[in-house]
Amino acid sequence: MKINVIGIATTQFGELWKISPKSLAREAMTQALEDGGKSAKQIDALFVGNMLADVLGNQANLGSFFGEVLGASIPSFHIEGACASGGLALHTAVNSILAGQYKTVMVLGVEKMTDCQPDDIVSGLMAAGSDEERLSGATFPGIYALMARAYMDEYAVSEELLASVSVKNHFHGSLNPKAQFQKVLTIENVMKSTKIADPLKLLECSPISDGASAVIITSEPVKIKKKAISLVASEVGTDTLALHNRDTFTSLSAVVTASKKAYKKAGITPEDVNVAEIHDCFSIAEVIATEDLGFAKRGKGARAISEGKMTLGSGNIVTNPSGGLKACGHPVGATGIKQIVEIVEQLRGTAGKRQVKNARIGLTHNVGGSGAVAVIHILKK
Amino acid sequence: MKINVIGIATTQFGELWKISPKSLAREAMTQALEDGGKSAKQIDALFVGNMLADVLGNQANLGSFFGEVLGASIPSFHIEGACASGGLALHTAVNSILAGQYKTVMVLGVEKMTDCQPDDIVSGLMAAGSDEERLSGATFPGIYALMARAYMDEYAVSEELLASVSVKNHFHGSLNPKAQFQKVLTIENVMKSTKIADPLKLLECSPISDGASAVIITSEPVKIKKKAISLVASEVGTDTLALHNRDTFTSLSAVVTASKKAYKKAGITPEDVNVAEIHDCFSIAEVIATEDLGFAKRGKGARAISEGKMTLGSGNIVTNPSGGLKACGHPVGATGIKQIVEIVEQLRGTAGKRQVKNARIGLTHNVGGSGAVAVIHILKK
Repeated sequence: MKINVIGIATTQFGELWKISPKSLAREAMTQALEDGGKSAKQIDALFVGNMLADVLGNQANLGSFFGEVLGASIPSFHIEGACASGGLALHTAVNSILAGQYKTVMVLGVEKMTDCQPDDIVSGLMAAGSDEERLSGATFPGIYALMARAYMDEYAVSEELLASVSVKNHFHGSLNPKAQFQKVLTIENVMKSTKIADPLKLLECSPISDGASAVIITSEPVKIKKKAISLVASEVGTDTLALHNRDTFTSLSAVVTASKKAYKKAGITPEDVNVAEIHDCFSIAEVIATEDLGFAKRGKGARAISEGKMTLGSGNIVTNPSGGLKACGHPVGATGIKQIVEIVEQLRGTAGKRQVKNARIGLTHNVGGSGAVAVIHILKK
Repeated sequence: MKINVIGIATTQFGELWKISPKSLAREAMTQALEDGGKSAKQIDALFVGNMLADVLGNQANLGSFFGEVLGASIPSFHIEGACASGGLALHTAVNSILAGQYKTVMVLGVEKMTDCQPDDIVSGLMAAGSDEERLSGATFPGIYALMARAYMDEYAVSEELLASVSVKNHFHGSLNPKAQFQKVLTIENVMKSTKIADPLKLLECSPISDGASAVIITSEPVKIKKKAISLVASEVGTDTLALHNRDTFTSLSAVVTASKKAYKKAGITPEDVNVAEIHDCFSIAEVIATEDLGFAKRGKGARAISEGKMTLGSGNIVTNPSGGLKACGHPVGATGIKQIVEIVEQLRGTAGKRQVKNARIGLTHNVGGSGAVAVIHILKK
């Protein structure tokens, strides 16, 4: 059975103080319907990726809650998997279509974070970690800093090389009108920014954001051919919640497992991928992902990025053309769906100033926690 | 493709102060593996139904969290749909098997509620309602009381007739060693209990509970035939979150929609069902469900229950042989899976003192909020 993405939309990402979760979701879903040439009545089911609405907004029963916004009494599901909630919602939606249960479904990723007290947001996000990590006072910047330190030691990589991730992603973000930050950065800017968790600096950490993204996927024949992009693989990998239970700090086995399965299902190798959206919650996360996904050899990811090999205009593969989590923003439940929206734009050839030339195969990499769960999707023109 | 339930387990339900969510989950999953003759390594994926762990326990990323408890690095998913989280997790698991993505999967329902302050629990549960309901100070007992009042007016039904639901369910619970309350009640006991939300009294409201239940389902051929029970329909219906947006207070359209689809898929009529687990969060909920599911005519549900037509030993169909939410307890995320465990016990003929004679077809009815979502499963011997 062939599944196509036929409708896509994303709201502005950023600190959207005046917009409610309902309004964000309505905007994304309405525009996705318009883009896909569908009415709400033609949608068989809704899958919602969200992490924090219950904790930060006292709203659960999110399938029904956002189903009401869509204006359709259809089976509706809320899938939570921390920052991978969006990718997991799409995976679940894909399975429901392959099962023959539904034909055309909406997948919504949405998160509203900035209305809340910083302490509540930090505590909410740390709910994705392990008991031991929380009890020891660890935060996600701290956990990823451990990975960065291990990586720098293992491969003799400098802080400047890690910083190049943010420079690339801010350059891409400067070309994306939906991005939270549309300003270019230099290595010096990154290096001089406040240290958050040594060696990670403020400009190596993704921000707190609001936003919603939606896609419509279908198994039915597509009328407007130029808009149909095939979803050829959807795979999930998992690992322990806590870092201390893992064999290595410089690779995420959840990503390796899921991407191997996805490449096999799609019948491609990493070299075939033209464009990828990577879960760069921190600079080190993108470096490790670049290697785990097979886009660079072990220990060579940071250098490849700093040499422009993943940058628009000069790379063999372009990673995070949207600006990634760092520049485009990271409304956690929305991120996995925004990645799909970006790849579909790239494969359709409608990505404007940030268009990757001749993009035919794209990949998304969405991670929850510090690698406890990873979701890989592969799309083809 | 045929899907069988091959392993089942449920922990004690009740106020389990000394047991953590992890321990509850471990107990249920370990026993389900044992019952199904499987090892953790033979499980392809895990689906977790839970509503409140994030709000009450500051734990998200629940797929990975409980996957770690299972001791398997397998794709793991957390599905939330308020009190229907368990049923929705099973529905999602069924689809993933029908999709050909996984063959043998574990579905866990778990909730730990009693450790928390009553105010936090009430606020957490009300997250399943609508903004308007919360802002107006409504609680779920209040919302169901509106339905009870409307039903009593429409069909000239007395409070005593409604009270008979609790009498039946406590009688069944008295035969279930896993039930939170194993004490029989009289109509007088119920009528004299404290009014919670007129006309509903304390003994017509399901309790706050802890507990976990797990089932293993598979598309693979089953070796131990007597343990294999077929899952022949899994359907979801939805409605508005808020009562005031509905056409009627005396029927839940989500239940009607889902059950019609389920009966059709199973190729049966309501008369074919021998035993059913019903979501009796309040007495009126069971009365309306009895009618929505087609087990009694409109306006006749309460009388049928009071006349013993749904009681063990005297009924044509037995509803809530486990004791239902009222007597067995209602750890919200676990409920939808406990219902499956009970029906499988009944169809296997291993339900002990509460065994329904010649039970061949069973149904479960799991509801989220005040009817915003409903999940119906039908099982056959």
